[in-house]
Amino acid sequence: MTESVIQTITVEEQAKKAKKAAKVLGILTTEEKNQALRTVADALEADYQSIIAANLVDLQKGEEKGFEQAFMDRLSLNKDRIFDFAEGLRQVAELPDPIGDVMSGWTLENGLKVEEVRVPLGVIGMIYEARPNVTADAAGLALKSGNAIVLKGGSSALNSNRAIVKIIHQALENTAIPRDAVQFIDSLDREATQQLFTMKDHIDVLIPRGGASLIKAVVENATVPVLETGVGNCHIYVDQEADAEKAINILINAKTDRPAVCNAAETLIVHQNWLKEHKDLLAEACKKHGITVHGDELARAELPDVQQATEKDWANEYLSLDLAVKTVSSLEEAIEHIDLYGTKHSEAIITENTDTAKKFMQLVDAAALYHNASTRFTDGGALGFGAEIGISTQKLHARGPMGLPALTTRKYLMSGNGQVR
Amino acid sequence: MTESVIQTITVEEQAKKAKKAAKVLGILTTEEKNQALRTVADALEADYQSIIAANLVDLQKGEEKGFEQAFMDRLSLNKDRIFDFAEGLRQVAELPDPIGDVMSGWTLENGLKVEEVRVPLGVIGMIYEARPNVTADAAGLALKSGNAIVLKGGSSALNSNRAIVKIIHQALENTAIPRDAVQFIDSLDREATQQLFTMKDHIDVLIPRGGASLIKAVVENATVPVLETGVGNCHIYVDQEADAEKAINILINAKTDRPAVCNAAETLIVHQNWLKEHKDLLAEACKKHGITVHGDELARAELPDVQQATEKDWANEYLSLDLAVKTVSSLEEAIEHIDLYGTKHSEAIITENTDTAKKFMQLVDAAALYHNASTRFTDGGALGFGAEIGISTQKLHARGPMGLPALTTRKYLMSGNGQVR
Repeated sequence: MTESVIQTITVEEQAKKAKKAAKVLGILTTEEKNQALRTVADALEADYQSIIAANLVDLQKGEEKGFEQAFMDRLSLNKDRIFDFAEGLRQVAELPDPIGDVMSGWTLENGLKVEEVRVPLGVIGMIYEARPNVTADAAGLALKSGNAIVLKGGSSALNSNRAIVKIIHQALENTAIPRDAVQFIDSLDREATQQLFTMKDHIDVLIPRGGASLIKAVVENATVPVLETGVGNCHIYVDQEADAEKAINILINAKTDRPAVCNAAETLIVHQNWLKEHKDLLAEACKKHGITVHGDELARAELPDVQQATEKDWANEYLSLDLAVKTVSSLEEAIEHIDLYGTKHSEAIITENTDTAKKFMQLVDAAALYHNASTRFTDGGALGFGAEIGISTQKLHARGPMGLPALTTRKYLMSGNGQVR
Repeated sequence: MTESVIQTITVEEQAKKAKKAAKVLGILTTEEKNQALRTVADALEADYQSIIAANLVDLQKGEEKGFEQAFMDRLSLNKDRIFDFAEGLRQVAELPDPIGDVMSGWTLENGLKVEEVRVPLGVIGMIYEARPNVTADAAGLALKSGNAIVLKGGSSALNSNRAIVKIIHQALENTAIPRDAVQFIDSLDREATQQLFTMKDHIDVLIPRGGASLIKAVVENATVPVLETGVGNCHIYVDQEADAEKAINILINAKTDRPAVCNAAETLIVHQNWLKEHKDLLAEACKKHGITVHGDELARAELPDVQQATEKDWANEYLSLDLAVKTVSSLEEAIEHIDLYGTKHSEAIITENTDTAKKFMQLVDAAALYHNASTRFTDGGALGFGAEIGISTQKLHARGPMGLPALTTRKYLMSGNGQVR
């Protein structure tokens, strides 16, 4: 196993092959697609050792390069993780097939029949970073929704991804899905990624998954439409009429359950009156859970051990046990802060006043809004969408957790007997 | 009335004002919005003469610049046209309000209630060319769907647009809709348009309406998401099992009813066998309707007065009485041609064989597919969508005629009593 680049065809040729395969895949039956996903799942489990061997090469190179621990964790695979994503494919096979759904239908006065039918997008370009499990997850969601996929993973995971794709390709040989429906850009070349950005004739949508700088690069340079998956600078607003126990529980859950994920809370916005009344409870909870607080003047006056918050803290997605604390004197001030610094992902209000909660949910512009619950529920699995390909923080096409329907579009089919205008 | 530029605030300030106004507008009741649209309609009719006076200035300048007749036609307003777009606003008021629709809702096992609610996009950036009626049409659709709008019309229509917006602003003063919800970029400066392209913090979507080069410029340079409205290189495929009368009627309708619109047919793809049998009928119909035919070798051999078609003809959106004729020997060859040159707008097959029709509709990738009917029906009005803001030829978010729902997104609203993960 070496890291030598075996890419012998151009990215454009790959995209063309994907497009051609998409035509075949797009009209397969649900059972044909499900059968193929199960075949791939079995193959990944049967050959998991080859993936682990390839992953070891990536891990060694990562260590040589001195990557940090969190990065190495994301890169690392073991038998359990591989069996998990194989099982994930079986779960995707169980999900309802969106393709072919007649979303609406009517007949015009002249007798022309109109049907709005759900169809695949065509070819998905997936650009991602260190996690090799995305290779299997994204391929599974794409294939189930009738789409071909062009995969461009991070260079640090090249060997792992290559091994996974090799197994997928071999398994697909025995199914109705053409192996060309999964294209893997086997290259360390940055130009290969950039070529995907403008391949409008062959690629229907780009989905970047990774850090803010990757997403920004794709959004700024792509002419192919992008499904932006996002950064979450999520806020918990504790209103003056908040129940203290609910507020503390939700804050601690949203901040500490999994600090490194996008639906974790980064800033506590707290009403001054509530803070004054419950400051001891809050301070104790933060201390107990190892939270480092960065606060404004009033927060520093009321709470112990608070670092001075700067502009940077309000905008920061810490992804750690750090928490910014902003004090406000009204709902309006809280909303203004979220407008300024939020990333339109998930925002929560804790209050016993339903009118205040309603106002918050009407006026805050975000994919997911919570009244008296943790932001951690913004997740395809938790909300019952089944698997997700990412969480959209944009407003067009898909918002919030993106399941299979986000990978589809529609066609209007008109049947007539000679109608003209 | 002069063409002097009265813009005194920056485009960014305007976009910020729009964003602020959108917050107020987004939660108005349906009746408040409808009332405002009717007030604006009345005002446009009452003050139509000021619009005509301003339009005369634009027309004079257009003549001095030697604009061609079709352009001058699009630019030109008269009492009837003004009353038409005023009436259009009243019709938009009659359309169902998409905002606030609960699209789906469920309760998780832990008791957390989830609602998917339709909400406005926020601020729409509308970039258009010579037609001043777009100013009123786009504002009406935006306001009804709860969105603020930033209008940037073509410089040739500056005076007309300014007059229309002045009346809209005055009328809005007496309604629940803030006048800032309609922003007009009163500038001849190209930079003003380009500033809109990247104003991601203040503008939620850009909608370019106009020629291919305008749309291309927006798609290539914008980081704000774009709703691409499109160019239509539409094909009529006459299969070997096509009924001759239906085929000729549909072709003539699709080509000649309104040659300059995007749902007009540009290319006839015809099966060789059908052509050989019905060539006299086809030749006669083309001659009778003044159609200039550009054909491939076989078309030239079978039909009289056919110019040699080149690569350019296959890709051309003539928007005139010119017709390209491509002969094929199979359905597959027809689909291949459409794949290569189509713009994913509207494509038709004429055949008595329903299996062939089904294959065509499955395999051709376009917003609207027709079996035995004219492509001219791809239109919000004709299909019963009500007014449309454009016809999308992209696959994300909206496809085909875009009515009010295309100007909306969703929020997930979660109500709990302390749920954590």
